[in-house]
Amino acid sequence: MNRVTAFGWVPSFAQGSVRDLRVRWALEEAGVPYGDHLIGPEDQASPAYRALQPFGQVPVYRDDKVQMFESGAIVLYIAQTSDALMPTDQAGRAMVMTWLFAASNSVEPMVGELAGMDLFHAGEDWVAARRPQVETMLRKRLADLQSALGERNWFANDVFSAADIIMTAVLRDLRHTAILADYPALAAYVARCEGRPAFRRALADQLAPFRAAEASQPELAGR
Amino acid sequence: MNRVTAFGWVPSFAQGSVRDLRVRWALEEAGVPYGDHLIGPEDQASPAYRALQPFGQVPVYRDDKVQMFESGAIVLYIAQTSDALMPTDQAGRAMVMTWLFAASNSVEPMVGELAGMDLFHAGEDWVAARRPQVETMLRKRLADLQSALGERNWFANDVFSAADIIMTAVLRDLRHTAILADYPALAAYVARCEGRPAFRRALADQLAPFRAAEASQPELAGR
Repeated sequence: MNRVTAFGWVPSFAQGSVRDLRVRWALEEAGVPYGDHLIGPEDQASPAYRALQPFGQVPVYRDDKVQMFESGAIVLYIAQTSDALMPTDQAGRAMVMTWLFAASNSVEPMVGELAGMDLFHAGEDWVAARRPQVETMLRKRLADLQSALGERNWFANDVFSAADIIMTAVLRDLRHTAILADYPALAAYVARCEGRPAFRRALADQLAPFRAAEASQPELAGR
Repeated sequence: MNRVTAFGWVPSFAQGSVRDLRVRWALEEAGVPYGDHLIGPEDQASPAYRALQPFGQVPVYRDDKVQMFESGAIVLYIAQTSDALMPTDQAGRAMVMTWLFAASNSVEPMVGELAGMDLFHAGEDWVAARRPQVETMLRKRLADLQSALGERNWFANDVFSAADIIMTAVLRDLRHTAILADYPALAAYVARCEGRPAFRRALADQLAPFRAAEASQPELAGR
């Protein structure tokens, strides 16, 4: 059985953002059955888990052929073994890799810096000076991204692919802000991706253990 | 002929860091001949170049089969077509992808945030508060990274691979600091990678046009 590690519970700001979502979504699109293995803070710190994931994060992915970490790598691996997430021609596959890395290395660092300030450092003095700089850089990047998407529905080859999974996951991390509304084609793109049945199943499956934990430990709810 | 875009000249802080270096290094390791196509600020802003690279950056890579951007994607593509940069078994290839993404998405954002402060925002008030936070996070990540490397020489499968190209390029962006000296196994790893003839050729080939530009326009030298 294919296995993905995920958290048993996370605070509300992280619910729907933890990176096992990306892998769950890819597996759902590819029609690959899998099970999740829920972990907690004690596992994250354990030498046994660190041997699988050196930073103590999720997800770790295992099937009968490979053992991996890094959601971008796992999604790309799943895509390489499924025609649901990548075309078969080399030029098309290269374009999927290009856009998957663009999401991961050219968009996510800016989104992450902004979200990190809002979620972990709100109210600190330095944020008042830094946040406008980051938002300006990010808006320039989003404008370029929207131009690149143009009239198309999907980033690589205008066919839904693994690149859209990572790009959507990255852009969703702006949902605590109103920024994306200023880039209507990107907002529509994210909505289009979030409307896919595979995304909705993946999101529900990430959230289900959080709801169960909150039902059995009511002090967790709303945190 | 395989082609890589690169800059005709950049200021000294960026010399040896521009991302065509990663692609040049991969091509040198793979023994693939290539030519560079030097561009400048006017190209970066042109619609024709933006159609190839939506953010106006380098490198763009072209061969007779594909056209790509994003150095991580290009290096992975070159690795997939050469046994010099990736093993042939699926488990080994998955591990190369894992560590290449770890460099690109789990190490580079922290390195980039620190280097960005030092190179573009030195002396701004907010940096005094923020830089220690980022350095603390980065040092934790480097400690985990050093533990993961352990006694091995290379990150994936203990064989030099595409992952080491991206990891080294990322860690080299700390060379304006003394931080890496506190992680002696990582410092030795970077030195081992930088000692490879393919790296030295790639670096020399990135720097050659800068030296030529500075010879013909002496006002550029030392900037």
